[in-house]
Amino acid sequence: MQGNDIEQLTKLIAKLPALGARSARRIVLHLLKKKETSLLPLITALQNVADNIKKCPICGNFDTEEPCAICADTARDIETICVVQDVADLWAMERAGIYRGQYHVLGGILSALDGITPEDLNIESLFLRLNDRRVQEVILALPATIDGQITNHYLLSRLKEYPVKVTTLAQGLPLGGELDYMDDGTIQLALSARKEI
Amino acid sequence: MQGNDIEQLTKLIAKLPALGARSARRIVLHLLKKKETSLLPLITALQNVADNIKKCPICGNFDTEEPCAICADTARDIETICVVQDVADLWAMERAGIYRGQYHVLGGILSALDGITPEDLNIESLFLRLNDRRVQEVILALPATIDGQITNHYLLSRLKEYPVKVTTLAQGLPLGGELDYMDDGTIQLALSARKEI
Repeated sequence: MQGNDIEQLTKLIAKLPALGARSARRIVLHLLKKKETSLLPLITALQNVADNIKKCPICGNFDTEEPCAICADTARDIETICVVQDVADLWAMERAGIYRGQYHVLGGILSALDGITPEDLNIESLFLRLNDRRVQEVILALPATIDGQITNHYLLSRLKEYPVKVTTLAQGLPLGGELDYMDDGTIQLALSARKEI
Repeated sequence: MQGNDIEQLTKLIAKLPALGARSARRIVLHLLKKKETSLLPLITALQNVADNIKKCPICGNFDTEEPCAICADTARDIETICVVQDVADLWAMERAGIYRGQYHVLGGILSALDGITPEDLNIESLFLRLNDRRVQEVILALPATIDGQITNHYLLSRLKEYPVKVTTLAQGLPLGGELDYMDDGTIQLALSARKEI
C-alpha cells in the first residue's frame, strides 16, 4: 500500500549492516517526516561522499585526497607502518590518538573458511612500500582471532626478507576488564604474559 | 583523519532512529566499499522519495499519489475509518492484510508530558471526514498506553456528536504469548475480558 519508492528505499536500507526490516521502516518514516532537516541533508552528504571519496593508492584508506591525509602528512613518522584489517580499524587507531605513523589497510584477513588468499588482500603493495629503506618497524594490528593469527604468521614469514622490526599489539585484560567477565583464553594470555611491577 | 565528507555523513546517519556512532561508522564504511551496489542505489532511492512522496491530504498517509493509493482505492470499504497514531501503524495494519477500510493518521497522540494538545494533531480533519454520512464506524487503533487511552477518551467524547459506531482494538494475550512472560496488566485485562468457548 505504501508507494513503490518507499518500498524500494526501505529494502535498500534494510540491507545495510546492523539494520533489518523493522529499523529500516523506522528510519524511512523518520526521513519522510523530516524531509528538510534529515532527508535532504542526508542525500547531499551521501552525494558528496560518492563524488569525492577515493581509496588511497598507498595505504588503502578512504579520503577526499589522493594520497590520503595520513600518507600526505609530513609531520607523521615515516619509519613505522601499522598493518590493519580494515579502514574501521584505522579509524579506531586514530581515535585512540596515540599513533603517529603510517598505515596499511589489508582489506581483510586470510581465511581458509571464506577462501581468502593473499592475492585477495592488499598485501603485495605492503612489501613494495618496504623497499623504501626508511621504514624501520611494521606493527601487525590484526584481530586477536585464529584468522588474525594465521595472517600474522603469513606476514611474519614474508617480512623476514626485509630489514624491519615486526611487532604486534599487546594482548591481555582490556582497560576496566573484570576477571569474572573475561573468557578463559584472555585470562591464560594475561597470566602467561604477566609483568613484574 | 577521515575526510570531512565522511565525518559529516557519519554524523547524519548516527542521528537516525535506532542508530548510533558505532553503527553509523559501520554503515558508512559499507557504503564506501560498495559504491556501485549500495551507495549509488541508495542515493537514487532517497532522491526518488524526496522528489515523489507527498502526505495524503485526506488521511495523512505518505504516498507518491495525492490522495494516497488507499484513499483512492474504490474497492476499499468507505464506511469504516481506522484512526492510527502514525504512518508506521498504518503500515503494520496493512501488513496484517485483513483490514479493507479507510485510515486516518493522527500524527501523534495527546500527551500532557510532551505538551501535545488536540490542535497539534490531525484531528479536526477526521471530523470533517465524518460529514460524509456514508461513514458508519470509527475504529480507534491507538497504542495501549495511558496517553493512548486519554486520546481514545478525547476522541470518543467528540465522536458522540456524530452518528457513528466507535470501536477499539481488542486487548489480551498476543498470539503465542506465554503467561509467564506477560506483565500483570495484560493478564488482568485478558482475565477480565475472558470469553466462553
